Amino acid sequence: LLGVASAAAASPSLVLNEDDIGALREASGGLLETSLQANKIVADEAIAAGIVVPWPKDAGGGYTHEQHKRNYKAMYAAALQYQISGDTRYSHYVAEMLSAYADMYPQLDLHPEKKEQTPGKLFWQSLNEAVWLVYTSQAYDMVAETFSDELRDRLKNNLLFPVADYLSKGQPQTFDKIHNHGTWAVAAVGMVGYATGRDDYVEQALKGLDRRGNSGFYKQLDELFSPDGYYTEGPYYQRYALMPFVWFAKAIETNEPDKAIFKYRDGILLKAIYTTLELSYNGLFLPINDAIKDKGIKTEELVQALAIAYDITADKSLSDIARQQERVSLSAGGVALSKIIAEGEVVPYNYPSKVYRDGADGEQGALTLLRSGDNESGTLVVAKNTSQGMGHGHYDRLSWQFYDDGHEVVTDYGAARYLNVEAKYGGHYLTENKTWAKQTVAHNTLVVDKASQFDTDLDKANKNPAEQVAFIQDNVADISIGRINTAYEGVQLTRIQALVKPKSIEPFVIDVVSIESDTQHLYDLPLHFNGQVIDHNLENSESFNIWKPLGKSNGYQHMLLRSEGNSATTNNRLTWLMGDRFYSYTYGYQAESAKQANTLFFQLGANDPNHNLRRDQGVVRRLKADSAVMYAVLEPHGEYNGTAEYVRNSYSRVNSLDYKPTKTGAELTVDMGQGLTYTLILTKGDENSSLVKAKVIELSEN
Amino acid sequence: LLGVASAAAASPSLVLNEDDIGALREASGGLLETSLQANKIVADEAIAAGIVVPWPKDAGGGYTHEQHKRNYKAMYAAALQYQISGDTRYSHYVAEMLSAYADMYPQLDLHPEKKEQTPGKLFWQSLNEAVWLVYTSQAYDMVAETFSDELRDRLKNNLLFPVADYLSKGQPQTFDKIHNHGTWAVAAVGMVGYATGRDDYVEQALKGLDRRGNSGFYKQLDELFSPDGYYTEGPYYQRYALMPFVWFAKAIETNEPDKAIFKYRDGILLKAIYTTLELSYNGLFLPINDAIKDKGIKTEELVQALAIAYDITADKSLSDIARQQERVSLSAGGVALSKIIAEGEVVPYNYPSKVYRDGADGEQGALTLLRSGDNESGTLVVAKNTSQGMGHGHYDRLSWQFYDDGHEVVTDYGAARYLNVEAKYGGHYLTENKTWAKQTVAHNTLVVDKASQFDTDLDKANKNPAEQVAFIQDNVADISIGRINTAYEGVQLTRIQALVKPKSIEPFVIDVVSIESDTQHLYDLPLHFNGQVIDHNLENSESFNIWKPLGKSNGYQHMLLRSEGNSATTNNRLTWLMGDRFYSYTYGYQAESAKQANTLFFQLGANDPNHNLRRDQGVVRRLKADSAVMYAVLEPHGEYNGTAEYVRNSYSRVNSLDYKPTKTGAELTVDMGQGLTYTLILTKGDENSSLVKAKVIELSEN
Ligand SMILES: [Zn+2]
Ligand SMILES: [Zn+2]
Repeated sequence: LLGVASAAAASPSLVLNEDDIGALREASGGLLETSLQANKIVADEAIAAGIVVPWPKDAGGGYTHEQHKRNYKAMYAAALQYQISGDTRYSHYVAEMLSAYADMYPQLDLHPEKKEQTPGKLFWQSLNEAVWLVYTSQAYDMVAETFSDELRDRLKNNLLFPVADYLSKGQPQTFDKIHNHGTWAVAAVGMVGYATGRDDYVEQALKGLDRRGNSGFYKQLDELFSPDGYYTEGPYYQRYALMPFVWFAKAIETNEPDKAIFKYRDGILLKAIYTTLELSYNGLFLPINDAIKDKGIKTEELVQALAIAYDITADKSLSDIARQQERVSLSAGGVALSKIIAEGEVVPYNYPSKVYRDGADGEQGALTLLRSGDNESGTLVVAKNTSQGMGHGHYDRLSWQFYDDGHEVVTDYGAARYLNVEAKYGGHYLTENKTWAKQTVAHNTLVVDKASQFDTDLDKANKNPAEQVAFIQDNVADISIGRINTAYEGVQLTRIQALVKPKSIEPFVIDVVSIESDTQHLYDLPLHFNGQVIDHNLENSESFNIWKPLGKSNGYQHMLLRSEGNSATTNNRLTWLMGDRFYSYTYGYQAESAKQANTLFFQLGANDPNHNLRRDQGVVRRLKADSAVMYAVLEPHGEYNGTAEYVRNSYSRVNSLDYKPTKTGAELTVDMGQGLTYTLILTKGDENSSLVKAKVIELSEN
Repeated sequence: LLGVASAAAASPSLVLNEDDIGALREASGGLLETSLQANKIVADEAIAAGIVVPWPKDAGGGYTHEQHKRNYKAMYAAALQYQISGDTRYSHYVAEMLSAYADMYPQLDLHPEKKEQTPGKLFWQSLNEAVWLVYTSQAYDMVAETFSDELRDRLKNNLLFPVADYLSKGQPQTFDKIHNHGTWAVAAVGMVGYATGRDDYVEQALKGLDRRGNSGFYKQLDELFSPDGYYTEGPYYQRYALMPFVWFAKAIETNEPDKAIFKYRDGILLKAIYTTLELSYNGLFLPINDAIKDKGIKTEELVQALAIAYDITADKSLSDIARQQERVSLSAGGVALSKIIAEGEVVPYNYPSKVYRDGADGEQGALTLLRSGDNESGTLVVAKNTSQGMGHGHYDRLSWQFYDDGHEVVTDYGAARYLNVEAKYGGHYLTENKTWAKQTVAHNTLVVDKASQFDTDLDKANKNPAEQVAFIQDNVADISIGRINTAYEGVQLTRIQALVKPKSIEPFVIDVVSIESDTQHLYDLPLHFNGQVIDHNLENSESFNIWKPLGKSNGYQHMLLRSEGNSATTNNRLTWLMGDRFYSYTYGYQAESAKQANTLFFQLGANDPNHNLRRDQGVVRRLKADSAVMYAVLEPHGEYNGTAEYVRNSYSRVNSLDYKPTKTGAELTVDMGQGLTYTLILTKGDENSSLVKAKVIELSEN
């Protein structure tokens, strides 16, 4: 009927190639087995459901939208199943589906629900169409050898070329855009090029429509990642952007190994993969900027990227990630990773303390991670000294997060959004994303005069990254120094965070926020934390039986004040219990001009008519002063064991915090008891300038 | 030095006997290996720490208290290690420790921090002393054969007999008490009896000081458990009470198998063990009455009890519990359970839908469990139609809980207490246990006129159990009917709860609260739930930016009102997301005298100066009427998948709820869409009497 040739298929040569298929045919057992079975189920269910190619009608989430999404996944799964098994039921299915699309596509006009700037034909937006083609071109490549010449020509001329043309010269503004939407289009067109021998498509994909290199894949590799492989929107969006990059790169590697695409820009693609993996804790991405918190390394994108990275690097420690993903990609890399795990040869992945520079030039600040222990139950400090991160960015310069014992302890709210939950504003970003999640007070960073950084002026924010002043590592501590002088007019902020790693007790954090200003301001330093308050030592503490909002705007309208107390100059302490561990936050301030300092306990929930916000909690350290220093120690300690009914070390170890300015900077001394003392020594660049160096000294009487 | 004999030890014959030791010596691998190593570590660390037997000084939690606790565990571990390995370093250690105690004990007066009614000598209270002797007599039994006659006599006369005498005739009021404190004393004295051949001790343990059978172990077995093995305080305390029961029973079985103690009272001890295991969900005990929520089947008591139960029953499905406990007891039963797991022969434990009668006679109401699926991710409805449960009881007649997908969904607060956390009122029960946790409004049951049941008069409450009217099981549904007519004067309450088990969709709950009263009252029906509110369909809904307490007493003083809306007569709906599943609660009422009904959203936190309460949430359905019926359907549905980015079935299936009185009772019809309808048919006993029967009919158009 369809003119399918009877010859057995040759190996594909796109993302998957001869090596991949050879490895898959021989492999069995372990995670690979599970992944193989999963693919077979998708393919078999698709065949059972039959060919359903509806005329495009619905917007995202609607029936025809979802059906066309199902179709490209089904074709991919069936084509791969054909390659693995040689069973022509699978290739026939793909042939029939492609034919149905080839019958329909030339008749299509723009989608009836089209998005203004970037309309599609099969889908409401061309982004979906590009994704469709990335999968479909691979499916075609895997079964094309079973087709007659006539069928192949028909599919090329009525389907693959028209879609590729539409995505390239049909939408030049998207195709040539230096943005991950552009990457999907470029990858789709380039993959059609390789699959059909159309070098012109490949060249346009690599160097832009005019083939001059001002746009296209290489330019995207140059500009979308920092030199450390950091994507400015943060890991949540980086994960999504990664898929077309690594897939298309693998297709280039298969077809033009001489291009050495994985070595391009000092191996930028591998850096991007490793960075995405590392910007996580216990399997979930760090919720930087607009990020939904339940997304992490188990996503399909990272499963695929991991296998490709292994294929290139043979880095055995990637198996430690595959173990946590609990599945592998169906490729040579996936086969190898599965084998390492099955043979008990997993090498621990070494999560580094590291500065991940932001910006194409690496000079737009940085996300800095300080680590102790592994990534599943170890300790992690995240210092966010980056740029704004474009439209999905938050006004959170110099904010931090703290992870320990497998938990988020000092938290970032992430995005206010319930993805795909229709009842929650159609699954889109909620109003509260703007009124709360993006605001400065929603973060663990200083708020000046109850306003957000840059007064939430995005243009201004985009132009003013934070500065990663220093990163210091030695045997005693890892230290980050960040600075922002543009977030609030006339206020210069420097933050020093040290993860101290004692030999005999748990790692702990020293945090110093240094504020320089000539005029009086109201300073609020929030600490958003997870857990049950155990106790605090604030004087004149008052708990309110009526909870009122802390303000009217900039996020304060969502915060309910539950209790308040006076803060002493130093040695204020708050202890809470999270999971089976205690956390104590001991803090103080130094400000000549300050009269009184308070600590406010708050919880979210005001001005939230649709119950959109999580009922998260925290404290705000409030101080009215001009120049000031707000310092703190955060320490995990002890254990709560409910099963065996014991509790140990439920009290903070900190006897005292002692901050004093010195000629060259300042010193903060932490007396941890039992003769153990740590001094953070801060040093200015030169007379009257800001702090630029830091070091922690350990003194032990024993 | 100590006169230790050189002969190898004979096997012990108390809780552990020849069979146990034989099995342990031959066994290896699996969970047993881990448990063996854990015991060796305790023994080795104890020997390394040396013999430390301080003069009694401190109350519970203090140094000498904790040291004497460590000592009995150390002696037990070392004695067992000696039995397993034959290494006399371990028996020497036990001999030295016992000698040190024998030197000290005769000189002791009552403890300086003694508790008034039940003072100890080594400890502040005699309960600890009994526990000490239960362990110590076993340690003695395991190593006694290595002792010279002289040493044995000294230990008996200066230590074992004096402690046993003190715990029996020295404290007759405790020893003869029908209470679990009495069980520890009885077990301790009885075990000394068996270990030393003192039949008089054994006889007193079994039949009381006067050996007439009005007290002692048999009487405790008669009165402390219901005929179904339910302990009136609930599973949290039942777990604690269980240890001396099963250990002493095993010692009796070893020494006097003719007594067939495990068959006594129709096998009451095995019923008690099985019941404790079954009153759990996903590893944690149902938080009935004063219960801390992190306690469950992994506790030492249940590990020991499980192995003893297996020893008696050879019930292979107990291995399913051992698998969840992740360790086994060091005994023949533990060896067998470990082997079943290691060989992959685990038989699933069949958790039944069941009525667990309360009261020694089984006529003090019941705790009724309705189940579908397993106990780790299945569905469970708990209907609390019990007696008060004595001093640790809550005013919660006819309350319920709902578990699903591994989570607590409709919740019970449990106890307000942070066990062993000194900063939280020394780890004792908090004030809020009385002002919140025990109150009726803290539970999912009807509150009349904002008062708690029995006006929290404990005497009255103790005298008036709820009634388990019926329990009906068929292919369509499991149904419980409970009643209480004494909790509020002039108000008769009947509650029908059905767990409906459709073939094609998730199990769901139908809940009907039937209220009969001649006079107008304010009815509040709270639903405490875990999860994030997705949406609701209440009319005239208002969210408050200032949160105020819902009342001044009876628990209401802790509840903050966050929003409020009008309830329609029927088809009110609230949907929330918990874990990766949606839950919809659809509800209505029937009351001729009612004018308007409201739904109030609340959260805990008012009048909580020490941050003692969890910030739990819920809704209150409020109605002013005389007689009324408040009905509801609670249905789990759909899936939220953050990793794969999809959501399915996020909307409730319920199209409508239709309640109508009939001549013989009433009918509630639930239209679940797609042609699927369920009708709950309620039937009165006779004209004008209360509902006594129920049945669910399934109607399917397909
Ligand atoms: Zn944020
Ligand atoms: Zn309760």
